[in-house]
Amino acid sequence: MPLEQVMHQLEIITSGEGFHDLTKLINNWIKASRIQRGVLNLTALHTSCSLTINENADPLVLKDLSTYMKALVPEEGAKPISGLGERLPYKHSYEGPDDMPAHIKTSLTSSCLSLSIEDQRLLLGTWQAVYLWEHRYSKQSRKICLHAIGEIQKSNKSLEVNANFNSALTSARNASKLNKIVQQRHNPEDWASEDGHETNVDLLIDRIHDLTCQDDRDK
Amino acid sequence: MPLEQVMHQLEIITSGEGFHDLTKLINNWIKASRIQRGVLNLTALHTSCSLTINENADPLVLKDLSTYMKALVPEEGAKPISGLGERLPYKHSYEGPDDMPAHIKTSLTSSCLSLSIEDQRLLLGTWQAVYLWEHRYSKQSRKICLHAIGEIQKSNKSLEVNANFNSALTSARNASKLNKIVQQRHNPEDWASEDGHETNVDLLIDRIHDLTCQDDRDK
Amino acid sequence: MPLEQVMHQLEIITSGEGFHDLTKLINNWIKASRIQRGVLNLTALHTSCSLTINENADPLVLKDLSTYMKALVPEEGAKPISGLGERLPYKHSYEGPDDMPAHIKTSLTSSCLSLSIEDQRLLLGTWQAVYLWEHRYSKQSRKICLHAIGEIQKSNKSLEVNANFNSALTSARNASKLNKIVQQRHNPEDWASEDGHETNVDLLIDRIHDLTCQDDRDK
Repeated sequence: MPLEQVMHQLEIITSGEGFHDLTKLINNWIKASRIQRGVLNLTALHTSCSLTINENADPLVLKDLSTYMKALVPEEGAKPISGLGERLPYKHSYEGPDDMPAHIKTSLTSSCLSLSIEDQRLLLGTWQAVYLWEHRYSKQSRKICLHAIGEIQKSNKSLEVNANFNSALTSARNASKLNKIVQQRHNPEDWASEDGHETNVDLLIDRIHDLTCQDDRDK
Repeated sequence: MPLEQVMHQLEIITSGEGFHDLTKLINNWIKASRIQRGVLNLTALHTSCSLTINENADPLVLKDLSTYMKALVPEEGAKPISGLGERLPYKHSYEGPDDMPAHIKTSLTSSCLSLSIEDQRLLLGTWQAVYLWEHRYSKQSRKICLHAIGEIQKSNKSLEVNANFNSALTSARNASKLNKIVQQRHNPEDWASEDGHETNVDLLIDRIHDLTCQDDRDK
Repeated sequence: MPLEQVMHQLEIITSGEGFHDLTKLINNWIKASRIQRGVLNLTALHTSCSLTINENADPLVLKDLSTYMKALVPEEGAKPISGLGERLPYKHSYEGPDDMPAHIKTSLTSSCLSLSIEDQRLLLGTWQAVYLWEHRYSKQSRKICLHAIGEIQKSNKSLEVNANFNSALTSARNASKLNKIVQQRHNPEDWASEDGHETNVDLLIDRIHDLTCQDDRDK
């Protein structure tokens, strides 16, 4: 099967410093785009948030990560880890006390990730999730570029291919809009705070996914 | 030549915190898969080990990296680098004192790497090697996904193509199993501790590579 | 359009610790190679410099990043961030006091980045630039591998395709050589120090780009 590429921009509304699990959103997009197998590149189009892979089970891991990162990159500037020398306040300060630390945290983590897709989903370890890590304190609108190169499953009936594909893309776009509304109405912190139980956000996203797949089953 | 993709999962048995050079294993797989030129994506399917590229010459570099990382992310929790404020113990502690530091170290380094393949081998600088960096203290079984997109060399005699390719894949699988046995019987720390001299592990891996290539020469 | 791959090695002469904006050089290469849409993988073929994406607007951000990183990874070795324990001097010291910190900084940032190309240019956020981050104090010659997989625009007139493509490649090579000369004659620190105003270096690179495109317009 020849390789093709598909691109999409995901919009995420964040609500302060913390982690936003992108795994389900990404898997929904992969299914809607019918990418069977391939490499997915993710790029955060910002310099004060990053992408990271970490534990999906105990939400305390994410809390400890936040706490650690705040201690490592404090607002008031760095003192050498050796304990020697003066404290060094940041010079880039006019965008607020959280801005320069956010740029540093971005360089210490990642702005892009490349992952494998297999059987129409991200190939991740059992305990892995893909997170957008917001480093600013206030609400932000963040764009993540999803760019896959791989084998895209086509329908056997060639006439249906374009119709199916267009409806899947429309569904994916609708899903993206719906997700944005969901995120604006709900506290995204719920995602990380529920110890693995299904939250309202999860249930809504599952419903979005059902709607996305419905189009294809109806044909 | 049209682009194709090949995937493989490498299993590595680690024996405590430290570095495991993956360069030869990866190059053996590239040769067995006959990938002439392409991009290779590596993903560590775990949240307490990472992938890093660093010096292949002086093993003291790896020792210093370990020492530095332990100082940067200590077991007892972080004190702000500014020197101000209280020590902050980790809340996620029930998996052992090395677990939360391992998650932090993973986020501060990388879970995935993308590298170029040229002339059937990784394109690396003279002093570069690709390492699995184990952050846990105890023995762990680690899976690394290798996913290449590129040009795959085929035999001129078309009937032999599939046979060759299947035998190469079988050889690669056997090589992977053999490597696992090799690692279980030997101390993988030898890899980093021998100042560039060939170790038993290196010699065994070279033998595996010879066996892998033998299949093709026999045809 | 079938996917193809293109590779190129960029040579950068650095002049001490700091940031070198690669964005224009990369975009020039993408245009010369006529890559319409695809994924670009960048690899720094060294263990004491890295690749990072950060702010392109206020040069104080880059100054603060440097200052922070020097405090985080000091020459004299690390003291645990907890404030407990002894200072730990580096064992790998024979290549100079900046060498081991450079290896650590490389592992804390990135040796490779994967980004999207759309409409013959890098898909970046408004405030993002791609930097080579030199961690050594002295002048160094650095090689960055550019490896794109994507759709390459061909001319409609098939006879012209190869001629165009070869001339574009030649132009790209010339552009690379010219850039090298430009960098040797000018202080690359100018790139980051001019608060967004066009520098001599910028103007020369624009001229290189014009020359690169001229070949195609002439046909």
